[in-house]
Amino acid sequence: MTDLGDLIASRLRDVPDFPSPGVIFKDVTPLLADGAVFGAVTRELADRWRDRVDVIAGVEARGFIFGAALAHELGLGFVAVRKAGKLPAATTAISYDLEYGSATIEVHADAFVAGSRVLVVDDVLATGGTAAAACELVERAGGAVVGCAVVLELAFLDGRARLAGRHVDALLAT
Amino acid sequence: MTDLGDLIASRLRDVPDFPSPGVIFKDVTPLLADGAVFGAVTRELADRWRDRVDVIAGVEARGFIFGAALAHELGLGFVAVRKAGKLPAATTAISYDLEYGSATIEVHADAFVAGSRVLVVDDVLATGGTAAAACELVERAGGAVVGCAVVLELAFLDGRARLAGRHVDALLAT
Repeated sequence: MTDLGDLIASRLRDVPDFPSPGVIFKDVTPLLADGAVFGAVTRELADRWRDRVDVIAGVEARGFIFGAALAHELGLGFVAVRKAGKLPAATTAISYDLEYGSATIEVHADAFVAGSRVLVVDDVLATGGTAAAACELVERAGGAVVGCAVVLELAFLDGRARLAGRHVDALLAT
Repeated sequence: MTDLGDLIASRLRDVPDFPSPGVIFKDVTPLLADGAVFGAVTRELADRWRDRVDVIAGVEARGFIFGAALAHELGLGFVAVRKAGKLPAATTAISYDLEYGSATIEVHADAFVAGSRVLVVDDVLATGGTAAAACELVERAGGAVVGCAVVLELAFLDGRARLAGRHVDALLAT
């Protein structure tokens, strides 16, 4: 673990039984509230991806926070990957399975210049279902996914298996 | 209108009949996708509020994008004002009336150091209902609201009336 990894770990809060009984939720809000740590996280993400990316795609909703700060740090544009029904104009959509039921995420159909290099950003990589769907969605909309960046990876859930063949990078794995 | 105002206006898209018939939605996604404009917007927001704010409160969901970039530019922490049921730990909540029905937003009860100076950030000021509720919510949670910053104000909806006594600042009013 890097020094930054220690710092990140110190700013995560375990919340038991959220969103459902038996789950221990990794709450990033203490990290975000600490401007020094939020800044260090954003700069580290930028250092890892600088010059390899044209646009940041943030996954609703916490991926908006890390992704927007990263886009600004890199001087890049930001594209919102949203839950169904939230985007106003014509969208490209993808549905994927959750533990119970399914979910749909969307992006504006004209969001990406064809072939632009897209980094998909979220806060936590868990089972990888959302991240895998977001990557495929970006590709359907004409972007070229260069990787998936997260702050925290819950390695015991093996989300990387759902993202095989993609470049997945986490600042901290636990 | 400033030069930046012209630039912002050029990157907004009118989407008719969203989210409901007769409404013309101001879509900020073209602005976000343009890194130069997104960066200029973030720096202008920072210049207007620098040294007067301790923490940024972003309103779900587009307020997360502008608010997080602004927090990073200013080196400040970020607090998420979220829709009901999204935050994992103990929250402070407020409900407010919408045109049809009502909505509830929440913030973690421990989100703010008591008396810290909080800037509430959202993308668009429309009727002011959400912004007014967000400001009151921040105060209930112990923050001191120094103002409400938005990129675009729909002045014909007179949202400022709901925010009387507060410092409301928009980069562009239309």
